[in-house]
Amino acid sequence: MKKVLVAGANGQIGRHVVRLLQESEHFEAKAMIRDKTQAPYFEEMGAGTAVVDLEDEIDVLAGVMDDVDAVVFTAGSGPNTGKDKTIMIDLDGAVKMMEASKQKGVSRFALISSFDTRRGHWGSEAFRPYAACKFYADEWLRNSGLEYTIIHPGKLNNEEGTGKVNAAADVPRDEIPREDVAKVIVETLNHDSLINKEFQVTKGDTSVVEALDSIE
Amino acid sequence: MKKVLVAGANGQIGRHVVRLLQESEHFEAKAMIRDKTQAPYFEEMGAGTAVVDLEDEIDVLAGVMDDVDAVVFTAGSGPNTGKDKTIMIDLDGAVKMMEASKQKGVSRFALISSFDTRRGHWGSEAFRPYAACKFYADEWLRNSGLEYTIIHPGKLNNEEGTGKVNAAADVPRDEIPREDVAKVIVETLNHDSLINKEFQVTKGDTSVVEALDSIE
Repeated sequence: MKKVLVAGANGQIGRHVVRLLQESEHFEAKAMIRDKTQAPYFEEMGAGTAVVDLEDEIDVLAGVMDDVDAVVFTAGSGPNTGKDKTIMIDLDGAVKMMEASKQKGVSRFALISSFDTRRGHWGSEAFRPYAACKFYADEWLRNSGLEYTIIHPGKLNNEEGTGKVNAAADVPRDEIPREDVAKVIVETLNHDSLINKEFQVTKGDTSVVEALDSIE
Repeated sequence: MKKVLVAGANGQIGRHVVRLLQESEHFEAKAMIRDKTQAPYFEEMGAGTAVVDLEDEIDVLAGVMDDVDAVVFTAGSGPNTGKDKTIMIDLDGAVKMMEASKQKGVSRFALISSFDTRRGHWGSEAFRPYAACKFYADEWLRNSGLEYTIIHPGKLNNEEGTGKVNAAADVPRDEIPREDVAKVIVETLNHDSLINKEFQVTKGDTSVVEALDSIE
């Protein structure tokens, strides 16, 4: 069993990720949470927990990675929080997790980014600072030497997952249930073919496994 | 005469920089300004001007670099603006200027950073997002392949410059007049020994030239 540290475990995607990892054959989850009162929720699923804050120093973050085989970063302040948190969590929190992973030799790293972080595709003026922070986190990961996968999901909704998606380097902009993003994350960790790759993903007609198999 | 593009020319440091470049033997200034009504101020000094916005695309920024030999980035939203501008100007504006410089083969690049951008030295919680953006801009420049110098000034004040400073990799935290920062910037461009180096600088007892000569 490979142990996967989930940063942002208590988030809306993160809770699905932890549950799916616990249900999987190959993985077990270690939920990274900021508040120890969140722990029982994950312990009831049989998941491990680690109480640590993404605003802590790199050494503190590395301190919960000793028994870890892969890291999923699905934390995010979201586009509607103060931009101070966008900087400190979406950009710097992600980068510190990458540096902590390198420090501990945890090579596999999956990052949940925004749908399109390429320059010129950052959207409205209000959205742009958020997209910029995601862009810099993505760039750091590409240059980190880690075995990375960057997942660019479409607009998130809370509909029930269908297990079917559309995934490729470029797909038309569309929505995707958070539960399906979580399925994509877990399957990504099962796909060595996705190491040092990135892709966009929305709702679609192809099973997650098949969709990820087809990414070049 | 080498032509120096000054990003942030209309700022409090930038105005000194343009004037000192115009007074120097080796340089002439091209003031990068956002608003064409700012142009006469610089034209009266005999400086060139380029009306362009740091939120423009890289190609637009590169478009004003054809006749340029070096870039000084002294633009900054300051620590007290909205963090959206910190991201889009202090981080992304600086990075776009670096990318534009690379695109045009303008290799010499001087960046005015914050006093101490090293991890663990980012100061109070309120200051940290600003310091983080400066950290990422610094890091981008270090890895850019440009002939960079990163200048880390102490707390800025508007006292008259003395022409005397304290400059080294590490100096005690202190204030420095903006006019003296401007002198340091201009002298930095005269110092090939400072290529791919960075230093902190505050007010002090050593002439700017001598202080920069002594940096290892």
